[in-house]
Amino acid sequence: MKKAIEIAKKSLETHDVPIGAVIVRNKKIIGIGYNKKEALHSPIAHAEILAINMASKNLNSYHLEGSDIYITLEPCLMCVGAILHARISNLYFGASNKRFGAVKSHQNIENLFTNHKINYKGSILEDECSSLISNFFSELRERSK
Amino acid sequence: MKKAIEIAKKSLETHDVPIGAVIVRNKKIIGIGYNKKEALHSPIAHAEILAINMASKNLNSYHLEGSDIYITLEPCLMCVGAILHARISNLYFGASNKRFGAVKSHQNIENLFTNHKINYKGSILEDECSSLISNFFSELRERSK
Repeated sequence: MKKAIEIAKKSLETHDVPIGAVIVRNKKIIGIGYNKKEALHSPIAHAEILAINMASKNLNSYHLEGSDIYITLEPCLMCVGAILHARISNLYFGASNKRFGAVKSHQNIENLFTNHKINYKGSILEDECSSLISNFFSELRERSK
Repeated sequence: MKKAIEIAKKSLETHDVPIGAVIVRNKKIIGIGYNKKEALHSPIAHAEILAINMASKNLNSYHLEGSDIYITLEPCLMCVGAILHARISNLYFGASNKRFGAVKSHQNIENLFTNHKINYKGSILEDECSSLISNFFSELRERSK
């Protein structure tokens, strides 16, 4: 998760909300991603999607069984869908996402899919992951004053 | 929808399940996509995702308000998430997707998000859209005999 936090900070370069994701398999990082929604003008360019794309390319496979994903923020519906499609085994996230979180906050992941079971754990380095985002919005408000 | 069906057939070139998507705004096509999951070895490369990416690039914006999306198959959770993120106004689909459809079949779109309301209509050229997919699987079964 420390690596995901480090990566999340790269989003700041393009004024994107700092969110990072890392995919690990057999103790090796196979995919990383950070939020590039503003940078790429794309509603798809979430950290998780970019990390999954990289991991799939690395493994030359659209299935990533046996992989773990670490995300600084609870993933949204789209990203949970992608994580389940990719058959990632374990999902770890930091801060909860009350508005859009589709693991436990807004939606419950257990109700969302039928053909893949995933283990998950939230609140990992939660304070650090939350501060990343709250600091970003505080600075944004300051700048727009 | 006829255009989406035509585009779906391109998936066959790479032995992908034939699914097509077209995004229209002000009577102009701004994005097309066809399923490239096998072609790109990517769990993300659904027709809708590729069409949204193209439309976002064309408009230079991650919001596609005022756009309509036509898809030959009821979209999955990931794609519904992406369609809602993109704030597409109207969603039209052909065949229902009993296993993974997140508009009305497996999930109900009304329960999935809170900040964007979308209109939708299914069963458009349903027989033609369904046959595309059922023929694909029949041929696959024949070939593997």
